Amino acid sequence: MALIVQKYGGSSVADAASVQRVAARVVATKQAGNDVCVVVSAMGDTTDELIDLATQITADPPRREMDILLTAGERISMSLLAMAIDALGVEARSFTGQQAGVITDAAYGRARIIDVTPSRISETLAEGHVAIVAGFQGVNTEANDVTTLGRGGSDTTAVALAAALGADVCEIFSDVDGVFTADPRIVPAARKLAKISYDAVLEIAASGAKVLIPRCVEYARRFDVPVHVRSSFSQMDGTMVTKEDPMEEPIIAGVAHDSSQAKVTLLDVPDVPGKAARIFEVVAEAGVNIDMIVQNVSATGTGKTDVSFTLPAVNGTEATSALEQVHAEIGYSRIQYDDSIGKLSLVGAGMKSHPGVSARLFGALSDAGINIEMISTSEIRLSVVTRAQDLAAAVRAVHTAFDLDSDQDEAVVYGGTGR
Amino acid sequence: MALIVQKYGGSSVADAASVQRVAARVVATKQAGNDVCVVVSAMGDTTDELIDLATQITADPPRREMDILLTAGERISMSLLAMAIDALGVEARSFTGQQAGVITDAAYGRARIIDVTPSRISETLAEGHVAIVAGFQGVNTEANDVTTLGRGGSDTTAVALAAALGADVCEIFSDVDGVFTADPRIVPAARKLAKISYDAVLEIAASGAKVLIPRCVEYARRFDVPVHVRSSFSQMDGTMVTKEDPMEEPIIAGVAHDSSQAKVTLLDVPDVPGKAARIFEVVAEAGVNIDMIVQNVSATGTGKTDVSFTLPAVNGTEATSALEQVHAEIGYSRIQYDDSIGKLSLVGAGMKSHPGVSARLFGALSDAGINIEMISTSEIRLSVVTRAQDLAAAVRAVHTAFDLDSDQDEAVVYGGTGR
Repeated sequence: MALIVQKYGGSSVADAASVQRVAARVVATKQAGNDVCVVVSAMGDTTDELIDLATQITADPPRREMDILLTAGERISMSLLAMAIDALGVEARSFTGQQAGVITDAAYGRARIIDVTPSRISETLAEGHVAIVAGFQGVNTEANDVTTLGRGGSDTTAVALAAALGADVCEIFSDVDGVFTADPRIVPAARKLAKISYDAVLEIAASGAKVLIPRCVEYARRFDVPVHVRSSFSQMDGTMVTKEDPMEEPIIAGVAHDSSQAKVTLLDVPDVPGKAARIFEVVAEAGVNIDMIVQNVSATGTGKTDVSFTLPAVNGTEATSALEQVHAEIGYSRIQYDDSIGKLSLVGAGMKSHPGVSARLFGALSDAGINIEMISTSEIRLSVVTRAQDLAAAVRAVHTAFDLDSDQDEAVVYGGTGR
Repeated sequence: MALIVQKYGGSSVADAASVQRVAARVVATKQAGNDVCVVVSAMGDTTDELIDLATQITADPPRREMDILLTAGERISMSLLAMAIDALGVEARSFTGQQAGVITDAAYGRARIIDVTPSRISETLAEGHVAIVAGFQGVNTEANDVTTLGRGGSDTTAVALAAALGADVCEIFSDVDGVFTADPRIVPAARKLAKISYDAVLEIAASGAKVLIPRCVEYARRFDVPVHVRSSFSQMDGTMVTKEDPMEEPIIAGVAHDSSQAKVTLLDVPDVPGKAARIFEVVAEAGVNIDMIVQNVSATGTGKTDVSFTLPAVNGTEATSALEQVHAEIGYSRIQYDDSIGKLSLVGAGMKSHPGVSARLFGALSDAGINIEMISTSEIRLSVVTRAQDLAAAVRAVHTAFDLDSDQDEAVVYGGTGR
């Protein structure tokens, strides 16, 4: 018997029939002898519909009120799921984030969990009932007001509850089968990983794959909560995300890609101390997160250099207009903006102890005739920027070059033995 | 400057444009120098849509979960209204029933308010902001669970808050202009009452008119809260409901009618002590409220009598099948069920001190050729049952006979001087 936290996303509870399907799965888990706590998102497009209603009222809704509005969505799905489980003969009680003890700061719309005190959940489980908790929401206890955790917040709710309850596993159900070595829509030969480390999945998430949101993985890593990423539409095992096991960790976990980035280049920036710092200060003040940065060595004698960085394309206008306002101060000649780029990231915890990974990556791209525009690295990640139209071919070439294609022997992927 | 509680029903906030219209009205009241606390119902058909969703899941949803589900509706309307008021430049904060301190018992779906501790509302008003409160809902503090007050509960929320805040008036906005001497759809000459007493409006509500629910009026009477019933679609004054003023109270406030009742008759009941008590015990155990009762004197020598009572037609099957199960015990010969009846009620606080009212009523019906099947009276009400198809004609005849038609001199209606 285990204590299992299950999280079901909006697509898993899109209508009454889906809610009943999820209820059957919860009941099966319960009847297999487990204690079950379920975290649930709002049904299907409910959250978007509520946002649309608010937009009809005002272009700039107060954040406190927006959070009250949005939390209505989980209130609906959680009570319906409790009813559906009850109808199958298993008692269930639903709880808001507040009732479940999910305590956050007061940053409405993007609150951070600061504590979880799930005494009502523990009591409910001890009574032999299923506990259902609204994802995505908490309470700011100082103001006694509801808050929301931002998009993907239900995953974080589930992991935080699993940590506070001491659950054996947190199962994240969605419409994908697990974490793959690459996006199967781009690489048909991609294979599902049986295991992956927190660090590697964090890098994959930060590299554009929409498997798990980084905040949720960070929470799981901090409290060492095993996370099982799996599909609500099949009974297959998905991918277990746990702490790194040096004996089992694959050298390369997978190839992520991201076509939502753009590149900004400032030409002819005076090559004097403090200019780069000022550029990134201005961009940060505009609320824009920068990803990769490249500063060329200044051409001999000119005293000028070019500075390039990548950022989410949705923030392109904010960043460039902020930089245009300090044109004179920074002294660049002009701004180039390019949203036709793609980013490929090779991720693997074993990478740090295996030289030759970058050489093999660059060789594969070169053989495929693909030009590399920018490079950045972390301990367990290697990212390159290509032309957008080359990105899919690049992902396939790298996937094959690292023997990740599914007709290869599994041992090559999962074995820790050097090569 | 006054402290005003305003309540807007679902039809007043049916969509984004309606919410904005209500917001403008709230802002105008605020800018006229008043403190304003607004109680709001769920938008349009939201509550019915949520009930429909639950019905798709299960025929018998747990009541606790049903209440969690239904409270989502006011959460949506209250936050949208706060946004709309904010967009007009006046700060507004919305609060759930729990946050507003509406404390109830644990009777999910039909909870009763047992206390109101609106400290957050008082603070919000003291800060010069508009406070918005979700109607229809409260919290059971023992279980820390949300509850709903049942249909029409938002009116009760508004009056209870007005009492706890010491408001000068509680304005109940709906799509009707006020309390009329009769239903204007049946009596075109019906006139709007400028004032009416709690007692009289209670009798009118209990007699089938859908002006205010009795629970709300009882609450207002107990705490002496002046209630202003008015239309959200016009600026006209509506009807003030206050405690009785013997100098101003009209003899007759109005004529109510109710065509939703049915009549059950048990034929040939043995005329021995305890039989009638047993009949009404059985009906009460089936959860059915009885309205009027008539027991004939037993025909000489038979030792048998007929017992008739009226009840809401929707409860007809429950009552008759409960009575069929005790057929042998009670010893009646058979049950007659008749849902083609109508009930007319003449209501007025002055009635008790004015003899001749019943004679005038019976005379008017007799002159109109309408047969009376049952009669019941209270201190300030006189009700008769007619055939359903005679009801409208009966209401018009009585309305005219008591000089209520609007071409009459107002003094006749409002004057306390006898006649």
